[in-house]
Amino acid sequence: MSSSDIFIGETIGTAILILLGGGVCAAVTLKASKARNAGWLAIAFGWGFAVLTAVYTSAPLSGAHLNPAVTLAIAIKDNDWGNVPTYFAGQLLGAMIGAALVWVAYYGQFHAHLTDREIVGGPGAQSTTAKAVEAQEKGAGPVLGVFSTGPEIRHAVQNLLTEVIGTVVLVLAILTQGLNDSGKGLGALGALITALVVVSIGLSLGGPTGYAINPARDLGPRIVHALLPLPNKGGSDWGYAWIPVAGPLIGGAIAAGIYNVAFA
Amino acid sequence: MSSSDIFIGETIGTAILILLGGGVCAAVTLKASKARNAGWLAIAFGWGFAVLTAVYTSAPLSGAHLNPAVTLAIAIKDNDWGNVPTYFAGQLLGAMIGAALVWVAYYGQFHAHLTDREIVGGPGAQSTTAKAVEAQEKGAGPVLGVFSTGPEIRHAVQNLLTEVIGTVVLVLAILTQGLNDSGKGLGALGALITALVVVSIGLSLGGPTGYAINPARDLGPRIVHALLPLPNKGGSDWGYAWIPVAGPLIGGAIAAGIYNVAFA
Amino acid sequence: MSSSDIFIGETIGTAILILLGGGVCAAVTLKASKARNAGWLAIAFGWGFAVLTAVYTSAPLSGAHLNPAVTLAIAIKDNDWGNVPTYFAGQLLGAMIGAALVWVAYYGQFHAHLTDREIVGGPGAQSTTAKAVEAQEKGAGPVLGVFSTGPEIRHAVQNLLTEVIGTVVLVLAILTQGLNDSGKGLGALGALITALVVVSIGLSLGGPTGYAINPARDLGPRIVHALLPLPNKGGSDWGYAWIPVAGPLIGGAIAAGIYNVAFA
Amino acid sequence: MSSSDIFIGETIGTAILILLGGGVCAAVTLKASKARNAGWLAIAFGWGFAVLTAVYTSAPLSGAHLNPAVTLAIAIKDNDWGNVPTYFAGQLLGAMIGAALVWVAYYGQFHAHLTDREIVGGPGAQSTTAKAVEAQEKGAGPVLGVFSTGPEIRHAVQNLLTEVIGTVVLVLAILTQGLNDSGKGLGALGALITALVVVSIGLSLGGPTGYAINPARDLGPRIVHALLPLPNKGGSDWGYAWIPVAGPLIGGAIAAGIYNVAFA
Repeated sequence: MSSSDIFIGETIGTAILILLGGGVCAAVTLKASKARNAGWLAIAFGWGFAVLTAVYTSAPLSGAHLNPAVTLAIAIKDNDWGNVPTYFAGQLLGAMIGAALVWVAYYGQFHAHLTDREIVGGPGAQSTTAKAVEAQEKGAGPVLGVFSTGPEIRHAVQNLLTEVIGTVVLVLAILTQGLNDSGKGLGALGALITALVVVSIGLSLGGPTGYAINPARDLGPRIVHALLPLPNKGGSDWGYAWIPVAGPLIGGAIAAGIYNVAFA
Repeated sequence: MSSSDIFIGETIGTAILILLGGGVCAAVTLKASKARNAGWLAIAFGWGFAVLTAVYTSAPLSGAHLNPAVTLAIAIKDNDWGNVPTYFAGQLLGAMIGAALVWVAYYGQFHAHLTDREIVGGPGAQSTTAKAVEAQEKGAGPVLGVFSTGPEIRHAVQNLLTEVIGTVVLVLAILTQGLNDSGKGLGALGALITALVVVSIGLSLGGPTGYAINPARDLGPRIVHALLPLPNKGGSDWGYAWIPVAGPLIGGAIAAGIYNVAFA
Repeated sequence: MSSSDIFIGETIGTAILILLGGGVCAAVTLKASKARNAGWLAIAFGWGFAVLTAVYTSAPLSGAHLNPAVTLAIAIKDNDWGNVPTYFAGQLLGAMIGAALVWVAYYGQFHAHLTDREIVGGPGAQSTTAKAVEAQEKGAGPVLGVFSTGPEIRHAVQNLLTEVIGTVVLVLAILTQGLNDSGKGLGALGALITALVVVSIGLSLGGPTGYAINPARDLGPRIVHALLPLPNKGGSDWGYAWIPVAGPLIGGAIAAGIYNVAFA
Repeated sequence: MSSSDIFIGETIGTAILILLGGGVCAAVTLKASKARNAGWLAIAFGWGFAVLTAVYTSAPLSGAHLNPAVTLAIAIKDNDWGNVPTYFAGQLLGAMIGAALVWVAYYGQFHAHLTDREIVGGPGAQSTTAKAVEAQEKGAGPVLGVFSTGPEIRHAVQNLLTEVIGTVVLVLAILTQGLNDSGKGLGALGALITALVVVSIGLSLGGPTGYAINPARDLGPRIVHALLPLPNKGGSDWGYAWIPVAGPLIGGAIAAGIYNVAFA
């Protein structure tokens, strides 16, 4: 693959990933969305099939890492670091484009949500999760949750470990792909399996932190949240931002280590 | 493929698509349906597996476009316009047949729903979505939603953009199919991936407009809604009808452009 | 395939189908089940994956028809009637065994459910669907629904047409399978597609009658319901029993006709 | 496969299985989890995709039994017992590691849950299932359910039969895998089918006992529950522990018998 194919593929792929992944968060959270309150199952399947669509579309160009933790793990596994910066750049740019597209697609819903006094902190404010309560104390409705992850219980060590564990599972499944379907490339079936692994991690390990398991997935949209001119949007919670970056990178490195010891 | 195979395949396929897609809307919406209030997840999976069934059944005859936006994108990509009118004609006819079959399969449910004073606008009328409220103001229950899409917030630019964005994602995934599974034809796995991409778009981008992402899917059933002798059915909302036609066509053209620049 | 392989395969396969399909109805309906009130999505996926498990397990022996409507359609398509009685016999026997196994697996739940005065018709009886109300008027809780289908609105012509339409979709998808995956046998992917088609029919066309779309699926368990020594079980609704037998057979024949005209 | 590959593969695979399977129980049950009350569908899909992830990852090393009932059935089928102890040891160790990882990933949630007076048995204690009520009578919230299974109605014969029936379905589907996809190894598609069979069993046969259908899945986490220093955790219900061990082993043996008689 050429450098430009990698950069374009990762940009397009990660943009689709975040458009669809952030999209399902918007769909389930925001006022005046038909899917409002569709629940955690919708979130988990929504992110999983976002991965499917993004991986399937971008695989022919870049191999569809779409996640710095995956790129890091493959670099460690193969001890080949040449394309890492290109992958990272495409992933971060794509994530930002995707988050901006969520804002376009849900423009009216964001406006309706953030100008509803009951939601953004008026006296009769309703909130159903600890995160919403916490966000409201900072003056925001649950809008940051459309962009980035946040913990239900703020505890740096646990939050970091949860992200590490989730990413180890994800990356190990991706690394063993080549062993299951000998050298046939990723293909449709590989994309499907990866997607369902992500559904699994969402259902099973998403409860505490919202499963970033991908530094670009969290950082790119957080930057966009900070930049977008949304009224009452509240803070971007930069104090937490390092955890969904560091945790997945540590997890990817551990998975590569396990792979090289046990599977290679 | 012969012209008649294309026409018959698209007619049968689009009829199945709308029978099952409109069917799940009827199942979740109408009174005296066992699936009533099954929620947005049922809608999203229902439409996705409607695509699966329809694509799988009609692919051997016509290649299973079932969507004018897909036909347009493939015509642009290959610069081959010969069969476009045949595809369009089969798709529109099939969509109308499918919508009529939904009416047959849910005949008693439509009757029970539209003659229930609480639903069609009596004093104690219940409604759960903005669309239902708006539809009731025009004198209809949510019956138009069984046939065609409508926005939660009526805003032509946003509604159009949301349909454009959703269709770009859909068509790009379909166009890259040939790159993933080199020349093996659509097949069962391709139909499955396409179906899950549609589930994804439904979960993630369906909130604002109900994701037509297919001009035939919206226009055909809207015509049938206008023609059917349903009591209290209300208007067919022709003022909105151009958006789910224009948006998907624009989206299909953009996807073909992206494909030709980045992937071809 | 030998006659005995066909008979054993259809018996095992249909037993698994009804064990899992009736099982999900018991799981969602009966008192003291962990899955109680899991909703229509659970029913639709439960029956679909019941088909997956049953087809996958029995395909090597009998080709996994598991449905007299499928057997009839294949006989019409190929004009080969030799094995039809063997298929039918295995399917009916298997369905009865499966229904009896549901009773074993949910023994305590049936007992708890049918001896609960609130459920079986006492003054404070609760009921959530029209069918439950109707069943209670005959002196039964919703226990018949674990075994056989019943309409929300009793209207013979509509009920029959709904079953015909659903079965046409099912059988047409099954008949075109050979065209999609040229002669490779049913296999895992074929079983998966068939299963998801059944999920689709459940979500989209199950609302009015509960989608028998298979004479053995309805008749076998209804016989077992009539025979089992369950207290307060109420009637077996034999007046409706001909519809989920006739409708699917008519649908299978129509699908075979469409196939022979349009696809062969 | 070497003994060490088998041991390592089964340990890693069963650890992933229980991490994700126990994880979804924690996610849906515990206080301060984003997925709380996501319902039985989340449980069933969560365990199914846990199987997918675990089987897919460990198949290249050990063939991914991950279940003593599967190992026993394959040993009976092939009359080859040499690796059975290695499989069993890896499975039990892996299950214990997985359960401990659930505790790490949900550390704060366990703490918040078990120190909430309303949950662990104070006057206003809320509980939604018979199991929770029963657990509270022993002084525990529903925390044991994160680790091990338990019956809604305690009836040894029925509970055992339900586990036997569920395991026969599971193991028969696994044993026929080789007949469907002639000798190509387990692969991605086989892992997917097995996963969806587990979703099916969960939806259809999970209601009475919570479907252990795997001795290691139940015993390993129960040991960890007994060892972990959780406040207010209550008893580990050792009186029930033999049923989810004996039932699956009996079911596996029966499935092997059916296979050898009918399919071999």
